[in-house]
Amino acid sequence: MSNLALEFCLVGAGFIGPVHAENIAAHPAARLRWIVDLNVGAGEGLAAKHGARATTNLDDALADAAVTAVLICTPPRTHASIIERAARAGKALFCEKPVDLDLGRVDACAKVLVETGTPFHLGFNRRYDPNHRALFDALRSGEIGRPEMLVLSSRDPEISPPDYVAAMPYGIFYDTMIHDFDMVRWLTADEPVEVIARASCMLGEAENPHRDPDTAMVLLRMAGGTLVHVNSSFRAVYGYDQRIEAFGERGMLISRNRQPTTLERYGVDGIRSDGLLRFFIERYAESYARELDDFIRAVADKRSPSIGLDDGRRALVIADAAVRSAKSGATVALQV
Amino acid sequence: MSNLALEFCLVGAGFIGPVHAENIAAHPAARLRWIVDLNVGAGEGLAAKHGARATTNLDDALADAAVTAVLICTPPRTHASIIERAARAGKALFCEKPVDLDLGRVDACAKVLVETGTPFHLGFNRRYDPNHRALFDALRSGEIGRPEMLVLSSRDPEISPPDYVAAMPYGIFYDTMIHDFDMVRWLTADEPVEVIARASCMLGEAENPHRDPDTAMVLLRMAGGTLVHVNSSFRAVYGYDQRIEAFGERGMLISRNRQPTTLERYGVDGIRSDGLLRFFIERYAESYARELDDFIRAVADKRSPSIGLDDGRRALVIADAAVRSAKSGATVALQV
Amino acid sequence: MSNLALEFCLVGAGFIGPVHAENIAAHPAARLRWIVDLNVGAGEGLAAKHGARATTNLDDALADAAVTAVLICTPPRTHASIIERAARAGKALFCEKPVDLDLGRVDACAKVLVETGTPFHLGFNRRYDPNHRALFDALRSGEIGRPEMLVLSSRDPEISPPDYVAAMPYGIFYDTMIHDFDMVRWLTADEPVEVIARASCMLGEAENPHRDPDTAMVLLRMAGGTLVHVNSSFRAVYGYDQRIEAFGERGMLISRNRQPTTLERYGVDGIRSDGLLRFFIERYAESYARELDDFIRAVADKRSPSIGLDDGRRALVIADAAVRSAKSGATVALQV
Amino acid sequence: MSNLALEFCLVGAGFIGPVHAENIAAHPAARLRWIVDLNVGAGEGLAAKHGARATTNLDDALADAAVTAVLICTPPRTHASIIERAARAGKALFCEKPVDLDLGRVDACAKVLVETGTPFHLGFNRRYDPNHRALFDALRSGEIGRPEMLVLSSRDPEISPPDYVAAMPYGIFYDTMIHDFDMVRWLTADEPVEVIARASCMLGEAENPHRDPDTAMVLLRMAGGTLVHVNSSFRAVYGYDQRIEAFGERGMLISRNRQPTTLERYGVDGIRSDGLLRFFIERYAESYARELDDFIRAVADKRSPSIGLDDGRRALVIADAAVRSAKSGATVALQV
Repeated sequence: MSNLALEFCLVGAGFIGPVHAENIAAHPAARLRWIVDLNVGAGEGLAAKHGARATTNLDDALADAAVTAVLICTPPRTHASIIERAARAGKALFCEKPVDLDLGRVDACAKVLVETGTPFHLGFNRRYDPNHRALFDALRSGEIGRPEMLVLSSRDPEISPPDYVAAMPYGIFYDTMIHDFDMVRWLTADEPVEVIARASCMLGEAENPHRDPDTAMVLLRMAGGTLVHVNSSFRAVYGYDQRIEAFGERGMLISRNRQPTTLERYGVDGIRSDGLLRFFIERYAESYARELDDFIRAVADKRSPSIGLDDGRRALVIADAAVRSAKSGATVALQV
Repeated sequence: MSNLALEFCLVGAGFIGPVHAENIAAHPAARLRWIVDLNVGAGEGLAAKHGARATTNLDDALADAAVTAVLICTPPRTHASIIERAARAGKALFCEKPVDLDLGRVDACAKVLVETGTPFHLGFNRRYDPNHRALFDALRSGEIGRPEMLVLSSRDPEISPPDYVAAMPYGIFYDTMIHDFDMVRWLTADEPVEVIARASCMLGEAENPHRDPDTAMVLLRMAGGTLVHVNSSFRAVYGYDQRIEAFGERGMLISRNRQPTTLERYGVDGIRSDGLLRFFIERYAESYARELDDFIRAVADKRSPSIGLDDGRRALVIADAAVRSAKSGATVALQV
Repeated sequence: MSNLALEFCLVGAGFIGPVHAENIAAHPAARLRWIVDLNVGAGEGLAAKHGARATTNLDDALADAAVTAVLICTPPRTHASIIERAARAGKALFCEKPVDLDLGRVDACAKVLVETGTPFHLGFNRRYDPNHRALFDALRSGEIGRPEMLVLSSRDPEISPPDYVAAMPYGIFYDTMIHDFDMVRWLTADEPVEVIARASCMLGEAENPHRDPDTAMVLLRMAGGTLVHVNSSFRAVYGYDQRIEAFGERGMLISRNRQPTTLERYGVDGIRSDGLLRFFIERYAESYARELDDFIRAVADKRSPSIGLDDGRRALVIADAAVRSAKSGATVALQV
Repeated sequence: MSNLALEFCLVGAGFIGPVHAENIAAHPAARLRWIVDLNVGAGEGLAAKHGARATTNLDDALADAAVTAVLICTPPRTHASIIERAARAGKALFCEKPVDLDLGRVDACAKVLVETGTPFHLGFNRRYDPNHRALFDALRSGEIGRPEMLVLSSRDPEISPPDYVAAMPYGIFYDTMIHDFDMVRWLTADEPVEVIARASCMLGEAENPHRDPDTAMVLLRMAGGTLVHVNSSFRAVYGYDQRIEAFGERGMLISRNRQPTTLERYGVDGIRSDGLLRFFIERYAESYARELDDFIRAVADKRSPSIGLDDGRRALVIADAAVRSAKSGATVALQV
């Protein structure tokens, strides 16, 4: 890695923003220069914590020639336009998924990125989880031969707030399982040719007033024959449930869940250990840091970032198909 | 339980026959009187071991008034006619699944059983596994509330011999997953309204010369909304993989696999424990004994055996639907 | 194994007696002929269950020429005289440990056994546990090289009744840890040269009115250098805790505990699994059956039974040393 | 915590020095100002990485009025004099254990700390491990009642280099188990009254040319009656083995080991998972960061640091007793 540090503008101070801010601050080859957020308090609070400047106007930060990278973690519907503006300003881009939920809009972004030659990384952070990565490495090394079946469990401890749900209907596919669709493509180095999805509302009116699907199962058939199952829920009361299982001709690999501590308690009512890590911020803390590091190294080494806009596009195509299948009951065929 | 012992005629000395023979011999309220098998050597060998008489002619045993129960574990295609003959001879019946693969034939048997008032138990042994049973009990006690998703892994260590496969095409549904279909019905006390299945041939020509499906995934939607995933394979090289996972509004239950010993080996290449129990005879040894005991008690107490012919019929309907879906790609709707 | 069956006289219908009776009844090369117990009801009840004869007079059974083997599971203080009488009557002997708590009395028995040429097996059942046995096999195969440290946890769920405790003071060493002392000798094929023990009374007056030690730790140094730790307690509320750990130059082996089922329950308060199997009858059920089988085979094959009186004597010498150390605080040296 | 940052001088750039340097750099209320090391290259390299100044002369750093805290991680024999010089210079102190191996020298340091009113923290980092801490919390909350037995396994993957071993004979007690002695005091809030130790050389001449003990077991009896076992080795080939088990009247608590990933590999030879984390730098990474944070908060809040010089003194007294016992075979009594 060259010894030039990337100077970051972070767009979006909420949600995952503070995690990225901290990782940028802790990275030896990165500096946090700007925080952009329409919410003045959130932006200034985060900026103050890390000695950065805050603004509500993205242009302020894009105009700063010292800024060499933009990290986008605003709500999804704003991603595409920020991508385009930042790309035209000549900044390297790290964008939380999705690029956009509209494929046409995604393609428009792709065009801008190509025209401007912008290094672009899409934040499918799970690829950087050490456990999933160990599974990937074992799979790719041929340890179990061809993967014949994949089983992914991907369950959140809670549903998003109603306004967030309203802003992204079928979020269980577009927002949650889209990670799994990416994992499946990454793990198998293959693309699905068939998508079948079923979803339902299991939560009560109070928690899920919009009656958006909160429970779902998907069956994918990959071009190479691998059969894939993905399941998801928005109320895993025992914590963030993130498991991947790959079955092949020579064995099985399981990336199991993680617990906060290793303490075991033996009592009259049996043996008890911790529940799972609470949610993605705890579970994928290491992944976010590793992912940022990989992006910084890619830019420094002038290689393409590891996860491109096309990865986001392909995962979105699968999510679209899953939504169509869940709505209509039909099986959706995809072209490779 | 009354102190009258059931006197058994066991039909079928191969495969699972010796397991049943041993369980009958060890049961304090059962005696093994006859072994019926067309293979004289097999029948006489097993009979000699347990001090029973052997014959190749079922009628010899049925004519013996002392025989009060018949246990059928011959090849599937022979079950229906043995059921009918034994029922007409007034014997209580324990029959390995399936009754038959033809629904019409199943219904004809049902008619005979009703007419003759025969106590009839169908051998879905997995309901008697202590681990699955503990899951069932926890589920029924409401520990996790309504089951929202079930995930069943049901993988054999090897494919059946070619002639066995040839005699029952799509055996992965009719012979293996039919157990899981029964478990799903039993665990949820509900019936599926939709069946989607995908299957493929992953094994080589040498092991699977008939190119019958050896790998499959099924997605079921139950009338009550529960989503169900079942996966199966005929080459789990690490042993007989039998797991059930139930996810509900208040938690998750997992009936995990069993290993021969608890030994852990720590070495330079990590921590190693035993593979799984080899196959159903090892894994479900306790289940077979408990199931026989339940049958004997039911007959003694003059209550209906726990698993009836209708359970076999309903599981067969699901298997039929799965085969149709796997063949055509269609989603198959079922009436409750 | 020859096809001659051993005809057993079981002495002692209480406690572990019914387990042995059932194992004899289930063994293809054994028959249960007599039950001897001073308690008429207990003896007749058990005899009736297995179609055997009951008596309160051992001589009745010893006089029966058809009896070829005597299994002794009476209270410890009666073992030695039964051994001598049965040996002189020409029966093969299976005796629960200990032979006696007095070394002189043990030696007297040894003399009678030699004089009469009696096949004698001492019931250190843990050697037959499949988990401990797998550890033994791995150790002996050299998998971890020389054992440098052993750690044994050996904890009962409850203390024995007061009269039992009164009859055998320091039972935590003489009755419980004596099994561990045998395991250590068996696993290392070595003898201790130094014994240090500490014991205390942790239970309340109500449970432990005689203030006999209920909690203990022992440190052994073996002739070959292996360091050994054993701990024991009489109130493991979570079940019968039976673990063995062997550490060597190339790794570690752990024979872990067993639980009744594999069910895992995930809820808001973490992940819960079963407690341990309740006590030795559940935990070592397989061991007792395997041990009996080994004894029967040894007699049939005219080889010495696997565990001899000298094994009992040597374990007793260690227990004696532990008691002396616990009482005096001294380190006790032993000759190999 | 006040918003004043502590300005650190780190003494000792080798071994654990870089870990502390990184934690200081990452801490929001700390700044790394000086690195002191006689090895110019090591000091300057580490200083450059963190934008600090390097010197070989401690006085340079102590003379800097901006320096408010000194973190000592030089070889043990140098600790006492650095403590005294830094205390007299008015700096808050964080010192890796031990203070010194000579009790008189420790007492002399204690006097200086009292005279100068210096905040002093001794680096028994294991108290900050989240797993051990969870065990501590459960124990203190009374979850298992009074601790009746403790079992600590404390095994290093390798022996220290010969010159390190030569500089601190019986390091298995003074350098390794001293952590466990501290853990025992901390967990039980009690002091030992009796110490028995046995040690041996199991490693070969090549790895352990000085024939210093590399394998040891200790038995402690605490004033309150708790029995304690500690074992240690310098060749746990499967990784850094760090377990604590507390047994009490109402149950058992186990702080288990940690593995790098949760990957499980199922194959024909069984189920394999990762070995343990390699050594203390990996295993206790979080502990070091939490410990530094606790020290910084203590100084900021003007409370005594959590682990004082007296804790070091008391652990040393136990280690001294263990060495005496291991050398002489005697049991060593301690005054509370």
